[in-house]
Amino acid sequence: MVSPAVHYHTVMSLDGYVAPPDGCQRWLRPFLEAGSEEMQAALASTGAFVMGRSTYEQQIAEGEWRFGDYPTLVLTSHPVMNPPPGVEVRGGCPKAALDVLASRMTHGNIWLYGGGYTAARFLDAGLIDRLWLAIVPVVLGGGWPPFDGANGPTGFIRRQVREGPKDMVYILYERDVEGAGSK
Amino acid sequence: MVSPAVHYHTVMSLDGYVAPPDGCQRWLRPFLEAGSEEMQAALASTGAFVMGRSTYEQQIAEGEWRFGDYPTLVLTSHPVMNPPPGVEVRGGCPKAALDVLASRMTHGNIWLYGGGYTAARFLDAGLIDRLWLAIVPVVLGGGWPPFDGANGPTGFIRRQVREGPKDMVYILYERDVEGAGSK
Repeated sequence: MVSPAVHYHTVMSLDGYVAPPDGCQRWLRPFLEAGSEEMQAALASTGAFVMGRSTYEQQIAEGEWRFGDYPTLVLTSHPVMNPPPGVEVRGGCPKAALDVLASRMTHGNIWLYGGGYTAARFLDAGLIDRLWLAIVPVVLGGGWPPFDGANGPTGFIRRQVREGPKDMVYILYERDVEGAGSK
Repeated sequence: MVSPAVHYHTVMSLDGYVAPPDGCQRWLRPFLEAGSEEMQAALASTGAFVMGRSTYEQQIAEGEWRFGDYPTLVLTSHPVMNPPPGVEVRGGCPKAALDVLASRMTHGNIWLYGGGYTAARFLDAGLIDRLWLAIVPVVLGGGWPPFDGANGPTGFIRRQVREGPKDMVYILYERDVEGAGSK
């Protein structure tokens, strides 16, 4: 069986933050609304989600579970009480957890939903096949990074650059399997 | 007299770092070489440079002063020994220092050369007219930010997006004078 590809989608400020220091995402709302078509398009080829503990807790706190019945993996070493249907909780290494998630999937790619710490672990394990950046035309000046503590430098290959709504820039990268730019 | 415009040029990893934690720029060298035409083009419309103390010390440490006889301002509150010709050292607020620099210029724009702390001070004072980003297709995972400690969110307007050599992406932003995105 071919493993499903892992796509990391991230929306960040032009100075590289996915959230300000206090985590409040009000600054991002107009851009997320403007980019919702792009997200819907990505969803069409998605068969499962993976996320870290903090991102999961944020989603739960928002009240509405937006991942429907998609097979969803929460990577955490601590127990989770009463997860929504479709959610599996696992600790351990990213690769083993992904294999379990893949066995539950019927189609599509795995959408790595964040956050930055989880993305860094996947990156360091060589597991991010595509990286989709939406760059918002705002400087935050500090905050939470998209790859929190990754062991760089890790090179990618640019596949597509597009102008999005509200002065956003979309860049699609692919993993540089052999590249001189990678570790 | 019309004040010269301030252009901040910055080359950063796709996760928003201008340098890794140890400050060593070996990872960046192939990209700087590939992008040298772009830099030469920017230089053609430049009449002066401004930089912070750390950036100045780095440039001095590299042995060759690459700014020729351009009027150059080093913004620092500590004295500098034997600066190269054309270099003026000033403390205080960015606006007052810029006015002094402008009085010495005969043409062109002011190139804000860095680093991130100095750029943040200029940004917070509303003094960055253009922001030119070169995004390198590399994840660093940590390091030095392009606007270190700026009081965001500050909005910009996207003016141009281009694909550069070696999978770089060039984005030109302009200051959002009235924008809802700015402070």
